[in-house]
Amino acid sequence: MKKIAIFTSGGDAPGMNACVRAVVRSAIYYGLEVYGIRHGYDGMIRGEISQMQSYSVSNIIQKGGTILKSARSKEFMTKEGRAKAYDQLQKYGIEGLVAIGGNGTFTGASIFYEEYGIPAVGAPGTIDNDLYGTDYTIGYDTAVNTALDAIDKIRDTADSHDRIFFIEVMGRDSGYIAIQSGIGGGAELVMVPETFTPIGEVIKTLEEGWSRSKSSFIIIVAEGESGGATEVGTTVKKHFPDADIRITNLGHIQRGGSPTAFDRILASRLGVGAVEGLINGQQGVMVGIINNKLTYTPFRDCISLSKPISDELVRIVEILSI
Amino acid sequence: MKKIAIFTSGGDAPGMNACVRAVVRSAIYYGLEVYGIRHGYDGMIRGEISQMQSYSVSNIIQKGGTILKSARSKEFMTKEGRAKAYDQLQKYGIEGLVAIGGNGTFTGASIFYEEYGIPAVGAPGTIDNDLYGTDYTIGYDTAVNTALDAIDKIRDTADSHDRIFFIEVMGRDSGYIAIQSGIGGGAELVMVPETFTPIGEVIKTLEEGWSRSKSSFIIIVAEGESGGATEVGTTVKKHFPDADIRITNLGHIQRGGSPTAFDRILASRLGVGAVEGLINGQQGVMVGIINNKLTYTPFRDCISLSKPISDELVRIVEILSI
Amino acid sequence: MKKIAIFTSGGDAPGMNACVRAVVRSAIYYGLEVYGIRHGYDGMIRGEISQMQSYSVSNIIQKGGTILKSARSKEFMTKEGRAKAYDQLQKYGIEGLVAIGGNGTFTGASIFYEEYGIPAVGAPGTIDNDLYGTDYTIGYDTAVNTALDAIDKIRDTADSHDRIFFIEVMGRDSGYIAIQSGIGGGAELVMVPETFTPIGEVIKTLEEGWSRSKSSFIIIVAEGESGGATEVGTTVKKHFPDADIRITNLGHIQRGGSPTAFDRILASRLGVGAVEGLINGQQGVMVGIINNKLTYTPFRDCISLSKPISDELVRIVEILSI
Amino acid sequence: MKKIAIFTSGGDAPGMNACVRAVVRSAIYYGLEVYGIRHGYDGMIRGEISQMQSYSVSNIIQKGGTILKSARSKEFMTKEGRAKAYDQLQKYGIEGLVAIGGNGTFTGASIFYEEYGIPAVGAPGTIDNDLYGTDYTIGYDTAVNTALDAIDKIRDTADSHDRIFFIEVMGRDSGYIAIQSGIGGGAELVMVPETFTPIGEVIKTLEEGWSRSKSSFIIIVAEGESGGATEVGTTVKKHFPDADIRITNLGHIQRGGSPTAFDRILASRLGVGAVEGLINGQQGVMVGIINNKLTYTPFRDCISLSKPISDELVRIVEILSI
Repeated sequence: MKKIAIFTSGGDAPGMNACVRAVVRSAIYYGLEVYGIRHGYDGMIRGEISQMQSYSVSNIIQKGGTILKSARSKEFMTKEGRAKAYDQLQKYGIEGLVAIGGNGTFTGASIFYEEYGIPAVGAPGTIDNDLYGTDYTIGYDTAVNTALDAIDKIRDTADSHDRIFFIEVMGRDSGYIAIQSGIGGGAELVMVPETFTPIGEVIKTLEEGWSRSKSSFIIIVAEGESGGATEVGTTVKKHFPDADIRITNLGHIQRGGSPTAFDRILASRLGVGAVEGLINGQQGVMVGIINNKLTYTPFRDCISLSKPISDELVRIVEILSI
Repeated sequence: MKKIAIFTSGGDAPGMNACVRAVVRSAIYYGLEVYGIRHGYDGMIRGEISQMQSYSVSNIIQKGGTILKSARSKEFMTKEGRAKAYDQLQKYGIEGLVAIGGNGTFTGASIFYEEYGIPAVGAPGTIDNDLYGTDYTIGYDTAVNTALDAIDKIRDTADSHDRIFFIEVMGRDSGYIAIQSGIGGGAELVMVPETFTPIGEVIKTLEEGWSRSKSSFIIIVAEGESGGATEVGTTVKKHFPDADIRITNLGHIQRGGSPTAFDRILASRLGVGAVEGLINGQQGVMVGIINNKLTYTPFRDCISLSKPISDELVRIVEILSI
Repeated sequence: MKKIAIFTSGGDAPGMNACVRAVVRSAIYYGLEVYGIRHGYDGMIRGEISQMQSYSVSNIIQKGGTILKSARSKEFMTKEGRAKAYDQLQKYGIEGLVAIGGNGTFTGASIFYEEYGIPAVGAPGTIDNDLYGTDYTIGYDTAVNTALDAIDKIRDTADSHDRIFFIEVMGRDSGYIAIQSGIGGGAELVMVPETFTPIGEVIKTLEEGWSRSKSSFIIIVAEGESGGATEVGTTVKKHFPDADIRITNLGHIQRGGSPTAFDRILASRLGVGAVEGLINGQQGVMVGIINNKLTYTPFRDCISLSKPISDELVRIVEILSI
Repeated sequence: MKKIAIFTSGGDAPGMNACVRAVVRSAIYYGLEVYGIRHGYDGMIRGEISQMQSYSVSNIIQKGGTILKSARSKEFMTKEGRAKAYDQLQKYGIEGLVAIGGNGTFTGASIFYEEYGIPAVGAPGTIDNDLYGTDYTIGYDTAVNTALDAIDKIRDTADSHDRIFFIEVMGRDSGYIAIQSGIGGGAELVMVPETFTPIGEVIKTLEEGWSRSKSSFIIIVAEGESGGATEVGTTVKKHFPDADIRITNLGHIQRGGSPTAFDRILASRLGVGAVEGLINGQQGVMVGIINNKLTYTPFRDCISLSKPISDELVRIVEILSI
C-alpha cells in the first residue's frame, strides 16, 4: 500500500480534526502518501481530493468541527455515484481509505468495499457514543462536558428560583449523553430511551423531593425518549400547574467546541490505529478501543449490533438522586 | 443609620452574589449591621430575615445565581402585602434597603419608599442591560460571553456542514446581548428589536454571501425581534427550501455560570456604592456606572426612560460582516 | 455495619467532593448512618466528626477541592496518635471507614486497620494517576484538561513569536499528566520520568524541526524528569543562545477547578463502590476501576506496586510530532 | 488614500486578530486596498507583505495570538533599517499604516512618521492596560479573566488545605491586572507597583485574618512589585515558618487564549476607528476609547504620559477583604 485517503462524513464531532491529524502524520511516518477528501462521499464523487503533508494538519488538534468538511451524499447511495467515486480514487491511485463517522458512514464504506474491494478502516466519530465495537466514540466526552457545563449553569438559576428544569440533551436513540451528563450534573432524574420512564415516576420524584424539602429539580431527557423534554415537561406541567417548570433544549452547542483531552487522545490513538490497521491488512472494519486496547470490528457488526447502556450507571442515578 | 437589609429580586443574574458580598462587607466596614432577606419581597413579607456577617459571604464571589434566592411576589403588589413587609422590617429595626434587580424590583422599592419612607438604593442586576441610569448591568457581560461561547461552538458545526444557523439570544425587548454577541461571534447578521430588519434583508445577506462564495452563516436574532429565531428561520426556509437551515435557542444557560471579571468588579463597585449611597442620604435611587463613574439616578427615571442601543455597534455589524 | 465515616487526606483533587457525595448518599440509601471527618487523620484524632445527611452534600458535585478539608498528620504516624483516633471513632460508634486519597492515605489506613481492625476501603483521589489498582484516579482527567487548556493558550503565544516553550506539568514521579497533556496539546516532545530523555534528543528535535521550517515548539517536561523544565530549558538555552526560549511551570492551577464529567462519574462510581464494598465485607482494600469494572485491590499492593506508563502513548507522541 | 497596511508588533495579546479582521474588512468596506505585513517591523524591512481580502480574516475573531505574527526588530531602530522599510512600502504603494501594539510599537511608528511622513494610526494591543489615551487595551480583559480563572482554581486548594498563596500576575510596571483579578478573585491583599505595600502590611493582614478565624489567604502580587511573589512570599515565610505558604507565578497563560466578548468588541471598534481615522486624515496618533467614545491621542502623549491606577479600586480591595 502506497497511497491512502482520509475523509469525514455524517454529523461532525469534536476530535475529528485530531483524528485527521493522526491519520495524516502516521501515514507519513510509515512512508505512505496521504490524500484528504473534502465533503465526505460527495467530495469523493466530485474529486475534491488533494495530497496532505505533515504541516497540513498543524494546529488543528484543538479545533472543533472538521477541516475536511462533512456532507450527506444521496448520490453515493446509487450505483452510479459509487462508480464515479471509484473512478476518482483510481485517478489518484488511492489504495486504502480511512472513514471517520458513524453508522451511515460505515454502511457506505462497507458497500463500497464489497463492490470495489478498496480496503477501508472506519474510525468512530459521533457524539452519540452509540456504536458497537468501541467503548467510546470521538466527540462523546466533549459533548458530555458541554452538556454538563450547561447543566451547571442552569442549576444556578434553578436553585435561585426554586424551579423545575426539563433539559433535553442529544443522543438520538441512545441515552449515553443523558446518563453521563445526568450523573455528572447531579440530576434528580434521567430519562433515557433504553429504559422507559413512565410519567408517574417523574411525578413521584417531584413529590418525594418536595416531601424532603428539595425545592429545585433538574430532569434530563434524552432526545429519543418520550417525545423529548417538551412533551414530558408539558405533561408534568399539567399535573402541577402551580409549579415553576421550565423546558430547555441544549441543541447544537453539543456538537461543537474544542475537544477535551480525552477526545484528543482517543482520536489520536484511533487515527494511528486506523493507519496501522490498513498497513497490516485490515479491511472492512472499524477501529475501536475496548477495555483500553485497540480492536478491529467488522463493519457489519458495528452496523447491526447495538451497544447497551451501562446498568451500573442507571443504578447510580437512582442511588445518588436521593 | 444603623441597620440595613439586602435582597435580590426578579430574574437572577451572574454577579448578584458578588454584589451581595460587597454590600455585606462594606456595611460592616462602615459600622452598620446588615441583614439578608431571602426570596425577595416575598421573603420580606414572610420575615425570612437574618443577620449576616463578613464570613456569611465568603467564597461566593465566583458563584452564579443568588444565595439569597429570588422570587416574584404578587402579594407585595398589594397594600396589605407591603404593610406586612413594613412590619417585618420594623421588627428588625431596619432603616435602609439595598435592592438588587431590574425594573420590577425598583418599581416595588419606589412605591414602598413613597408609602413608608424607608430609604432604598437599587443595584442593577439583570443580564439584559436594558436599564437607564447605568452603562452596564450586573450579569450582562457574563451572559454575552456565555452566548459567544455557544456561538463559537455552533460555528464549528456550521462551517463543517455549510449550514445557516439562526440563533436566538435573550434580552427581552433589548438587543444588547444580540448585538454584542453578534459582533463578538462574527455573525453575518444581527436582528435586534431596536431596528426592524425586514426578511428581505436576511435574504439579501444570504444571496450576497453565496455570491462571494461564503457557505456558512450565523444570524443572531434577539428574542424580542420578529417572533424570534423560529419565526425568522422558518420564513427564510420557505424562501430557500434547499438550504441547510438550523434554528437554535440558547435558552436558560445565558442566566447562569460563574461571573466574568467584569461582572464581579462591576458588582463589587455597585455594592459598595449602594451602601455608601445609603449612608450619604441617597434614597429612592439606583446606583449605576456611567462613563466609569458611580452615579445615582432616581428610580422613576430608571423605570420610565429607556436606554438606546449604540449606533456605533449597529454600524460595526454592517461593516464587519462583509 | 451501621455507622461509617468518610474523610479526605493528602493533596486535594477535583472530584473528591463528588466522591464524598456518592459515599454519603449511597450509605444513606443502604440504611447506614454516615459521618464526615474534617481535616483527614488530624481531625480524626481531634474528633472533628459530625453526622452527614443527604442534603449535606447537595450542590457540591461541581466543586473543586474538598468540603471535608485535607491535612497531613504527623501525629497519626505515632502509636499514640492512632490510639486517640481510635478512641474518637469508638465514641461515635463508627465501624467502617472510607478514605479518599493517595499512597500516604492508604498507608495510614492500612496500619490502622492492622492495629485496630476497623475495616477501611480507600478511594483513589490524586491528580497524578500513579496508583496501582485502578486505571484512573479521581482528579486526573481534570488536571490533564487544565494543563491542556494552558498549553493551548501558550501555543497562541509560541506561534505568534516563533518561540520554544518548556512547560512543566505536575505528576511527581509519574509522567501520566505529561504524556496525556502532551499528546492532547500537540507537543513536539514530552519528557517523562519513566523513560529518560537525554538532552541530545531535545536538541535533535529542535534541529530537525527547524530543518522542516517549524518555527515554534512546545516541550512538556514532567516535574520529576531531569530537574524539571527549568533545568532542561536552561541547558538547551546554552546550546542555542539565539533561540527565543521560555520556561513556564503550570503550578497549582492543576489541582483545582470544577471536575470534568469523567471525574465526576468516576468519583461517583468509586464512592458507591466503596460503600458497597464495606457492606459486603471488604476491608483493607482500595476500590478502583480496571477495564471499566469495579475492583478491590489490597492496600499493600496499591502501596508497593507501581503502574507503568502506556507504551502505546509513548509511541504516539513520537509518531504525531513529525 | 488608496492602499494601507496593517501589522502587529510587540508582545501578542488576545484580540489582536479581531482587530486585524476589523481593519481589513473596514478598509475594504471603504474602498481601500489593504496589505498585511508579517512579523512586525522586521517583516516590513524584509518585505513580508501581501494583499488581504475579506476572506483572509474569516474565522479568526475567536483566535488568540496574531495571524500576522509579531517580532521585536533591532534593525528598525537604525536609520538604515527604517530606510529599507520605507522602500518596501513604496514598492507596494502603501500610503498609510495601522500598527497594533504597545509603547515600543508606537515609538517606532512615531519616528517613522516623522522621518518619512507615512501616516500611521496605532491601536493599543497589550494585556497590561498601561497605555495613556485609552481606558482599555486589547487583551487586557482576557488576561484578567485568565488570571481570575487560575485564582478560582487555586482557591479550591488553598481552602482545602488552609494555605496561604502568593500569586504573581503579569503587568510589568502596572498593577491593572493585579487589582482587577484581585478584586474579582476575592483576594485578601493585592500588591501593586503604583502603591508600595510594606511587608509589615502583609504580616498584619495575615495576623488579623487568623484572629477572625480565616484560615486560607490569596495574596496577589503584580510582577513589578517588590521583587514579585517569590521575594514577598519568601520573606513572609521567614516570619511565619510554620505557615503553609505556597508561591505560584501564573506566567505565559495570561497572554493567550480566545479573546473575551469585551476584547473582541473593543478590538473591532478600534480597528474600524483606526481605518476611519486614516481616511479622515489622522496621522501619528493612537485610537483609543475613553468614556465609551472613540478618541485619537498623539503618539507622543501615549508614550510619555502614564495612566494612573484607579483609587476607587484600591479602596474597594481594602473594604472587601475584611
